[in-house]
Amino acid sequence: MSEANNGHSKSIKVSDEIVKLIIDSDLKAGDKLPNEYELATRLDVGRSTIREAIKILTSRNILEIRRGAGTFISQRQGVVDDPLGFKFIKDKKKLALDLVEVRMIVEPKIALLAAQNATKKDILELETLCDEVEGLINNNENHLKKDIEFHTKIASSSKNLVMPNLIPIINSSITLFIDITNRTLKDETIITHREVFEAIKLGKGQEAHDAMFMHLMYNKRNISNQ
Amino acid sequence: MSEANNGHSKSIKVSDEIVKLIIDSDLKAGDKLPNEYELATRLDVGRSTIREAIKILTSRNILEIRRGAGTFISQRQGVVDDPLGFKFIKDKKKLALDLVEVRMIVEPKIALLAAQNATKKDILELETLCDEVEGLINNNENHLKKDIEFHTKIASSSKNLVMPNLIPIINSSITLFIDITNRTLKDETIITHREVFEAIKLGKGQEAHDAMFMHLMYNKRNISNQ
Repeated sequence: MSEANNGHSKSIKVSDEIVKLIIDSDLKAGDKLPNEYELATRLDVGRSTIREAIKILTSRNILEIRRGAGTFISQRQGVVDDPLGFKFIKDKKKLALDLVEVRMIVEPKIALLAAQNATKKDILELETLCDEVEGLINNNENHLKKDIEFHTKIASSSKNLVMPNLIPIINSSITLFIDITNRTLKDETIITHREVFEAIKLGKGQEAHDAMFMHLMYNKRNISNQ
Repeated sequence: MSEANNGHSKSIKVSDEIVKLIIDSDLKAGDKLPNEYELATRLDVGRSTIREAIKILTSRNILEIRRGAGTFISQRQGVVDDPLGFKFIKDKKKLALDLVEVRMIVEPKIALLAAQNATKKDILELETLCDEVEGLINNNENHLKKDIEFHTKIASSSKNLVMPNLIPIINSSITLFIDITNRTLKDETIITHREVFEAIKLGKGQEAHDAMFMHLMYNKRNISNQ
């Protein structure tokens, strides 16, 4: 027990040292991590400890292993799956409604900030995502992933550093529990997404705020009615 | 490489199975996990895989190992350290300001909901925490941990399931980067905390909202001036 515990503490400690090394070396998402041998030498520990530390960092979405190619800095930037522990909340409908409550507090304000701060490049990317979601809906394909990308892009257009990490969590968690793809929110989604996008494009903060609020009200009612 | 990858996938898969087992067995925070031998038998894998899976779950704050006593369900309920990947954001002052921006969007609304939904027991606990923070400040002791507990208790009094998990993250992250203990926000904290508490106690939602907004404005200015 005590030995396992020591082994555990050591690989956790080394995983923190690898994170420090990533930051100090200015490695970015997609960059390759130095190999096991080099890490073991630089951090002065055994290769088995390095391997364990890499496993921990992979489970935290800080690293990703690509078969045959090596270990890379994850595109997911350390945002772990289920970071808020939603798995452990039993009442999934109440959770889904509470997530929408959080979204209704946060996302209209984010849309307002996006209308103030979006660059021309942001607006072009937003338009592409808005079109793509609409195309998927019209083709009866699953649009959930692109939908979350649209909301995340609005968040990054706000230029608040925290929001782009927060939005995917409070968006995607909903889809873990409630199947909204079966419901007929398709027209409402197309119309309100477009309204949000147009208001951001024109720099009209309050209109973007209100369109996002409307969009989320449809989502709220949809979950309430299930 | 490919072997390490397989080993990795297996321990991740088994860690998911252990989470399922925790949920299905209705194990709560503080309960003891079945021992390695029993888990290996039930999940039909080797003990070394169980040990690796337990390490992964420990690094995610789902389990905690107590030396000599065994492995327990963590009190931290799977809310991982740095779940939003703030470690990787280089501009810490901008991050701190953006976290306050998020807090200013979220926490006044939470205070409003707490004024609507707090039980008598919540109010007693809030009063104790409010007193404790004040006592620590008056004794020139570090009040940060209790301060976060006060804000988290307001979040749980809102009865929104998501907020109590979210608030510690957007509160404590600030303290990772900016040392606010050196600054003279002490009187303002005592007064605005008390105003928030009194408004919640009286069920006055808008007053609780406004007092929290004021409280966070002091925090924002404090960070801006550093």
